Amino acid sequence: MNIRLVSKIIGIVLCAGSASMVPSLLLSLYNRDGICGAFIGSMLIGLIIGLPLARRRVDGRERMQARDGFATVAGCWFFLSVLCALPYCFSGALPNFFDALFESSSGLTTTGASVIADVEALPNSLLFWRCFTQFMGGMGVLVLMLALLPKLGAGTVFLMRAESPGPIKDKLLPKLGQSAKILYVIYLILIAAETVCLRIAGMPWFDSICHSMASISTGGFAIKNTSIAYYDSMAIDWIMIVFMFLAAVNFSLLFLVAKRDFKTVLKNEELRLYAGAVALSSVVIFLVLIFQNGLPANFQVFTDVVFQVVTLVTSTGFATADYNLWPTAAQCILLALMVMGGCAGSTAGGVKPSRVLMLHRMVKRSVYKVLHPRQVHIISFNGKRVDEDTLLSVSVFFYAYCALLAVGTLVVSFDNMGFATAFSSAVTCLGNIGPGLDAVGPTSNFSALSSLSKAVLSVLMLTGRLEIFPILVLLNPHGWMHK
Amino acid sequence: MNIRLVSKIIGIVLCAGSASMVPSLLLSLYNRDGICGAFIGSMLIGLIIGLPLARRRVDGRERMQARDGFATVAGCWFFLSVLCALPYCFSGALPNFFDALFESSSGLTTTGASVIADVEALPNSLLFWRCFTQFMGGMGVLVLMLALLPKLGAGTVFLMRAESPGPIKDKLLPKLGQSAKILYVIYLILIAAETVCLRIAGMPWFDSICHSMASISTGGFAIKNTSIAYYDSMAIDWIMIVFMFLAAVNFSLLFLVAKRDFKTVLKNEELRLYAGAVALSSVVIFLVLIFQNGLPANFQVFTDVVFQVVTLVTSTGFATADYNLWPTAAQCILLALMVMGGCAGSTAGGVKPSRVLMLHRMVKRSVYKVLHPRQVHIISFNGKRVDEDTLLSVSVFFYAYCALLAVGTLVVSFDNMGFATAFSSAVTCLGNIGPGLDAVGPTSNFSALSSLSKAVLSVLMLTGRLEIFPILVLLNPHGWMHK
Repeated sequence: MNIRLVSKIIGIVLCAGSASMVPSLLLSLYNRDGICGAFIGSMLIGLIIGLPLARRRVDGRERMQARDGFATVAGCWFFLSVLCALPYCFSGALPNFFDALFESSSGLTTTGASVIADVEALPNSLLFWRCFTQFMGGMGVLVLMLALLPKLGAGTVFLMRAESPGPIKDKLLPKLGQSAKILYVIYLILIAAETVCLRIAGMPWFDSICHSMASISTGGFAIKNTSIAYYDSMAIDWIMIVFMFLAAVNFSLLFLVAKRDFKTVLKNEELRLYAGAVALSSVVIFLVLIFQNGLPANFQVFTDVVFQVVTLVTSTGFATADYNLWPTAAQCILLALMVMGGCAGSTAGGVKPSRVLMLHRMVKRSVYKVLHPRQVHIISFNGKRVDEDTLLSVSVFFYAYCALLAVGTLVVSFDNMGFATAFSSAVTCLGNIGPGLDAVGPTSNFSALSSLSKAVLSVLMLTGRLEIFPILVLLNPHGWMHK
Repeated sequence: MNIRLVSKIIGIVLCAGSASMVPSLLLSLYNRDGICGAFIGSMLIGLIIGLPLARRRVDGRERMQARDGFATVAGCWFFLSVLCALPYCFSGALPNFFDALFESSSGLTTTGASVIADVEALPNSLLFWRCFTQFMGGMGVLVLMLALLPKLGAGTVFLMRAESPGPIKDKLLPKLGQSAKILYVIYLILIAAETVCLRIAGMPWFDSICHSMASISTGGFAIKNTSIAYYDSMAIDWIMIVFMFLAAVNFSLLFLVAKRDFKTVLKNEELRLYAGAVALSSVVIFLVLIFQNGLPANFQVFTDVVFQVVTLVTSTGFATADYNLWPTAAQCILLALMVMGGCAGSTAGGVKPSRVLMLHRMVKRSVYKVLHPRQVHIISFNGKRVDEDTLLSVSVFFYAYCALLAVGTLVVSFDNMGFATAFSSAVTCLGNIGPGLDAVGPTSNFSALSSLSKAVLSVLMLTGRLEIFPILVLLNPHGWMHK
């Protein structure tokens, strides 16, 4: 492995991580909440370790191989998670380091699962830090980095491959750095637009900024104990529904919308499946609530249903209603949406609708092959032929996803809190969602789990965020050895 | 489709199904239990429909295509399930036809899930019939048919492909009919040996025969309300453990044992994974029970654990202990074993250890490909190279399995009995096991579910038993049309 180059990039990211604490530090100083020392201490540690690494000289001719790219991405996320956990530790909010690591991993991976029961007791600077980690995680520190440092060297295409969620990537523009900039501009515009809309709907400025960062990154950290239910406003609910929905659409499609190419957007098969699943699930769950739970058939109930459907399928995970009280069918539909997740090329987690579509078509093809053994069977996606290598890697990804769900469920099951809790913990962390069912439901948090479970779930968040394979490469002993 | 040939075979199978009721009828007449009319009526219906179909003339030159093979297998199982449900209906034991169909599907697919709460209230002739359907299902009516009618025509190799569980089939002997005979002889020897052993251990003759048929077929219907716990004998428990374990080993390997080729047997990778999973799971669950549930560390507890592990991984599903009372970790391990199932080429259900091994190796290969992009990566199984088509079909099978689990879970979830019940119902029926968790646990039954759930679960049993694709071919509208 090209240790020199990898560690240089990790150093740069650690310095950037330290710099990212500046807004929270300023807020802490302004509010005089007494935890500015926690931020300063964390920043110093980040700089002391990061600066020497970042200043290492790298031979311009050195090239990055795929494995270096995977190692860089995974290494950056891991070390950044540790660095970002320090403010929680030092401020005394989460004295247990595993709790703090869980919270910061959850933020950086835009999961939004929390171990803090009373978030309103935290100072504003720390609340802002929590949401800011999601903002950073949202598009990936490395997309930001790619935009800032497009001349880093060869091999950055592998970073992009490891980073961008989803199996197929429509190239926006030929240059990688330019693409990253466009994605980032879309991201910032969405956050700004949502902030303004929420402010107009009556949410204070601070809350609007925090919740916009948490929703466009599909993170889901709220700054109130009762999450978005606190505001009790249908206008706010619907604003968030719209923006959460948009944040889990492939950003390439949003770019096409900006260029007024609506035809391509409406033809996109992944978008259709995603939007169709949201619509169908909302209607079915609404009917189940009315007929099985006897809830009134009014717009408030419908709003709650759509909000929960959108917030879970996009892997955001805010709460406006306690779906633990909903019938089993509603919970199972939500769980299925959580496994599917939002579109590739967005900040959403999960298996991704595009993969589900391809897997479904592979099953269909197997059936057709029996019926018409002599015909040639091609699988297409958005009108283009998908090659067999992509299909194989999609199906291997699906198995790896299920195997990790099984491992996560088994580990959490040793906490003896029931099958639904264990399984949904794994689903919600691997899919970067946030809340699960039962003991980790929308009104609860992950603090009751053991340190082992928290550590493994943190790894699952990172694994899910990086589309599994970078972490598997790192966990493989051969990955550490020199070529 | 070759309707003429397909319907002829279904007719033959219906006649065979009627004939199979003779032992139960004789038992009913001998015991004068008053339900001989139920058997006679069912036999007459089977013969009236079956005989004309069976006597249709088929052109000797007509060939079977793959889709005809799949349709035949699925059609035979479906119509046989309906025929075998009639004695339950006519005798008044299960007046609801969907209940009766569930019970007979459960028997013929060797699932062993029941809707009868008080089996001891049934007359012996009906108890025998229940176990006899599992005996018939065990090796598949069609393997029997292949042994009896090896000259049926071309295309029988497709029947065999649809029927034999598992992705890879070591050919025992060149001729198909001969192979079927050998498998059948092994099956009968195992049943006879277990019957004698159980009788020696103190179980009455009738009980021994019924339970041997139910365990070698990996079915799991018991003739006592408390299943095998009724006998409260560790000798009986261990005899059943050994025979259930053997029944879920690839019968080709048992044949090699008979030929004293132990070397090949011990090298078999699927057998190693299966045996290793049984050993490891038993030890872990034993430790969990001692440390988390405070059970005494004695041989009785260990026996209960091994019995439950073996009975569930082999997809048999007898009960000696209520694992609903065990800690979550024990339940999750059991559930994972249920999904994996016993070896290919046996009567067991589930995904099969061989498929799990191949999927695992595909993930490993994807990791290696990143690390060594220029090397050629071959996946081998039992020392032989596995071609890419097989790998792709294994991964497509896995996705189809998961998708069916999701569909089953969603349907049962509308009965509003909790996620664990819904999910484990789908797992246990698709894997042909029997008991699940919570409301469908080892001390409960499936009678509380809705008729829709029962019907869908019956279809899942059949789908799982036939390795999914024959049913998908039938559910595809193109499958019904003429070429």
